Amino acid sequence: MNDAHPKDALLEVVQRGVESIDLGRQLRTGMPQSPNHPQFWHTLPRRHGDMVRADGSSAANDMITTGTHVGTHIDALAHVSFQGKMHGGVDAVAAGVGGKYEELGVHTIEPMVRRGVLLDVAGHLGVDCCEGGYEITVADLEATAERAGVTVGAGDVVLIRSGWGSRFAEGAPYVGGPSGVPGVGEAGATWLAERGVHAAGADTIAFERLAPGGGHALLPAHRVLLVEHGIYIVEALDLEGLAAAGWGEFTFVLVPLNIFGATGSPVRPLALRAAR
Amino acid sequence: MNDAHPKDALLEVVQRGVESIDLGRQLRTGMPQSPNHPQFWHTLPRRHGDMVRADGSSAANDMITTGTHVGTHIDALAHVSFQGKMHGGVDAVAAGVGGKYEELGVHTIEPMVRRGVLLDVAGHLGVDCCEGGYEITVADLEATAERAGVTVGAGDVVLIRSGWGSRFAEGAPYVGGPSGVPGVGEAGATWLAERGVHAAGADTIAFERLAPGGGHALLPAHRVLLVEHGIYIVEALDLEGLAAAGWGEFTFVLVPLNIFGATGSPVRPLALRAAR
Amino acid sequence: MNDAHPKDALLEVVQRGVESIDLGRQLRTGMPQSPNHPQFWHTLPRRHGDMVRADGSSAANDMITTGTHVGTHIDALAHVSFQGKMHGGVDAVAAGVGGKYEELGVHTIEPMVRRGVLLDVAGHLGVDCCEGGYEITVADLEATAERAGVTVGAGDVVLIRSGWGSRFAEGAPYVGGPSGVPGVGEAGATWLAERGVHAAGADTIAFERLAPGGGHALLPAHRVLLVEHGIYIVEALDLEGLAAAGWGEFTFVLVPLNIFGATGSPVRPLALRAAR
Amino acid sequence: MNDAHPKDALLEVVQRGVESIDLGRQLRTGMPQSPNHPQFWHTLPRRHGDMVRADGSSAANDMITTGTHVGTHIDALAHVSFQGKMHGGVDAVAAGVGGKYEELGVHTIEPMVRRGVLLDVAGHLGVDCCEGGYEITVADLEATAERAGVTVGAGDVVLIRSGWGSRFAEGAPYVGGPSGVPGVGEAGATWLAERGVHAAGADTIAFERLAPGGGHALLPAHRVLLVEHGIYIVEALDLEGLAAAGWGEFTFVLVPLNIFGATGSPVRPLALRAAR
Repeated sequence: MNDAHPKDALLEVVQRGVESIDLGRQLRTGMPQSPNHPQFWHTLPRRHGDMVRADGSSAANDMITTGTHVGTHIDALAHVSFQGKMHGGVDAVAAGVGGKYEELGVHTIEPMVRRGVLLDVAGHLGVDCCEGGYEITVADLEATAERAGVTVGAGDVVLIRSGWGSRFAEGAPYVGGPSGVPGVGEAGATWLAERGVHAAGADTIAFERLAPGGGHALLPAHRVLLVEHGIYIVEALDLEGLAAAGWGEFTFVLVPLNIFGATGSPVRPLALRAAR
Repeated sequence: MNDAHPKDALLEVVQRGVESIDLGRQLRTGMPQSPNHPQFWHTLPRRHGDMVRADGSSAANDMITTGTHVGTHIDALAHVSFQGKMHGGVDAVAAGVGGKYEELGVHTIEPMVRRGVLLDVAGHLGVDCCEGGYEITVADLEATAERAGVTVGAGDVVLIRSGWGSRFAEGAPYVGGPSGVPGVGEAGATWLAERGVHAAGADTIAFERLAPGGGHALLPAHRVLLVEHGIYIVEALDLEGLAAAGWGEFTFVLVPLNIFGATGSPVRPLALRAAR
Repeated sequence: MNDAHPKDALLEVVQRGVESIDLGRQLRTGMPQSPNHPQFWHTLPRRHGDMVRADGSSAANDMITTGTHVGTHIDALAHVSFQGKMHGGVDAVAAGVGGKYEELGVHTIEPMVRRGVLLDVAGHLGVDCCEGGYEITVADLEATAERAGVTVGAGDVVLIRSGWGSRFAEGAPYVGGPSGVPGVGEAGATWLAERGVHAAGADTIAFERLAPGGGHALLPAHRVLLVEHGIYIVEALDLEGLAAAGWGEFTFVLVPLNIFGATGSPVRPLALRAAR
Repeated sequence: MNDAHPKDALLEVVQRGVESIDLGRQLRTGMPQSPNHPQFWHTLPRRHGDMVRADGSSAANDMITTGTHVGTHIDALAHVSFQGKMHGGVDAVAAGVGGKYEELGVHTIEPMVRRGVLLDVAGHLGVDCCEGGYEITVADLEATAERAGVTVGAGDVVLIRSGWGSRFAEGAPYVGGPSGVPGVGEAGATWLAERGVHAAGADTIAFERLAPGGGHALLPAHRVLLVEHGIYIVEALDLEGLAAAGWGEFTFVLVPLNIFGATGSPVRPLALRAAR
């Protein structure tokens, strides 16, 4: 590469300026998360002042303990099986021998730089937040897309906003439990799969509708997307800023940690646009 | 947004196709890392076959324990102090009270989508790998840039390849210890700072030159970059693919985990270009 | 030592047979614990079947993440400070520099083999369980001791049973929160300190009375015992078996993990008696 | 129990005074341990000074991450299998389904209060420390016992001192690796099993002899003891004080953490004697 060479088209756009909306939640000890997964904990084994080097410098450092399905995160295909099989018919028990999912683990997810689409269902329905247990229907998805003037195409990443994410700061109520949580069900997941999306995300912990009091007993949308169609799921997104900005389509960037054999990864996805 | 509207310039380029080179190391239990930091460990508390739901589905999950300065990672400004002060004169001991660096923690690093430049020093010197303890000089940096026809500008992310990263798979030798590790010293760091770079990275654990047997006793480049100039450091990059592809400049994408108050974060940076 | 030598008096008793009552709770992922402390998690990184050695053998292993004030545990004197001082006037902030409490950490607690006394307050009051928020009074303690015919002496370990431990299996209610938790207050702690006890324990998470809804805002018994008198506190004991057996005094054995600089340790105390 | 009642014989001895020798190593971040297991790390999420309560008090706390086969520890029978079976013919793979060894896990080990015997092989051989890779023979064990005038009986806990424990403070050399580690082999383990011991311990990480450079590839003594005979193994004991004191027999106390389903536990065993 030489500065005299024709400029790369991507870099040219980037250097003219890019606007970015952060779709990830901040990782904090005590944030709401599913009790099925190891809690996120961050601590400082070494702080400034603990030890000073000969030259007057010091270094502080961290220890993290966490599940991978906490905070904003992506589900690898290895996360879910149905009747003993993962996506592509992979034997789920055999695949885990060795303590790593070498097949379908999160290290097999390519970093994403692709079209993202926001379906702001709460906005379309005119509510701050869909009710706990509300199932977002195919009709809701289609009407939302139509009103926003966006189409959902093959290879897209579709983000579904129920408004439930506005409750993240409340803590336990965000997780759901007694209230249930809004989201798509089997029908909505099938609609997404029929459109050939690459990944689907939502502003809730479980992506899909949870019945009031029902917990995580049945997760049909996970089965449809992860197992049957190989479509990744992104959970606990912060879609409030994206909805407020009114971005219906955008460049979606998501880079999972490359954890060999894991079933998921915390992520911090971005929505990007050229500055205007 | 409406599909009829003029297309976003960034998305247009992205949809014509983007090439990507992964600059992050895979996170694996047992990979080489500094003994100063908690080891990376990944395990599966739940595997498929451990428990099956009523509907025939099962979910596997993970537990991770790790430092933040392991694998490919970014140093936040809170990582290093000099004579009791962090960047901007922030009192380093006071800033850590509460167990979080609210000032200058890794949550204050904005996701990066900006120009990246590779300075392939090993390539320029015609070696596979600079020797342990070799200090990359200002003359090396300038000659490498000149030969590649790239300039280092304000706001850029500069990645310096010593070739030491080709030893990552060897394990302990990559960490250095008796051999030392190649890298810039105070002079090289000053040269980077004078050019106003946003961040600097290298294919070694400590970014800067470590003397043979010298360990981490003195880290002048960290002081210059993090403390004096507020320039982020990215370590343990995989620059082999980038050098092999001959990309001298590119769009550099790096999204730290948004860990409130931490001194660093594992990252998986990408180099991007429009497909040709 | 020679078998012909006169037998050790302790070993002689032991070899005639010893009865033991386990006073510790089983450590299980998901057990009730204070939300202030890192959750106990146990997982198996390696299971049998993951890897078989050349000779046909395999080894399974564990990873544990945990706070030290979870499950049945002991508080070191370093756990609590009052107005900036720990026991003996040690400066609390200065003592923690370095990330270890070299003074007063749990490694400074000698293993205990000494007289234990059970004060079964719930039994004396004729209830299964004292109510949440009930303050166990000095009169309760004295009447309980008198009825049992035991005296509390210098150097003893005194275990106070409120019956709340019978709720451990219920999970969240055991922790308290809205209901409060029964226990001694400042007066009861002072009574214990006046008797010169070596350590005091209870069948609740916080040892002392928690007001309904009050959380851990004020912990006067901790101040009296740990800070003012250097008396260790043992929490979340299982005293149900001891009460059922009607043991009023016994040999109490408690061996903290020797964790350098920690503020506490999970423990599994035993009550022992010569077999009859 | 009533103070007027005849005193418990055990308590009577205890109250006349007990001498204790600590057989456990201090748990410190950075101590030598097998690289096969998660490292021991201790950190303080909260230190005094981080937060002060309304009443002027503060509490500091800990986070621990660790394997269970680190520091002084006990191996549960679930730790090792041979040709797919654990002790008693339990199917090793099936037993681990669920992520806990409900059968043969460390929670099934009863706390030990029983006769302990020291076989100070290094003392008998007149060396500070047996050489790396030295196999302690049956003849060594028998001669050591004879000279000390102790017999090894059914139900005893036998502690074998090679002197290698004196190298614990050296760090990496203690682990062995190139040098190998001294210990019994299959023959010595068989000799112990024939005597019906309850548990066997040593002052090395692996209990048994490791060949120079051989690592943990073959562990016949583990097979003989854990799998074939259901005899527990205690590793990384500190036997220096016990040997120096010349205690050949004593009361041995070991209380594993009651971790449901784990393959081992850190322990801090004690040798006790009535004061003289």
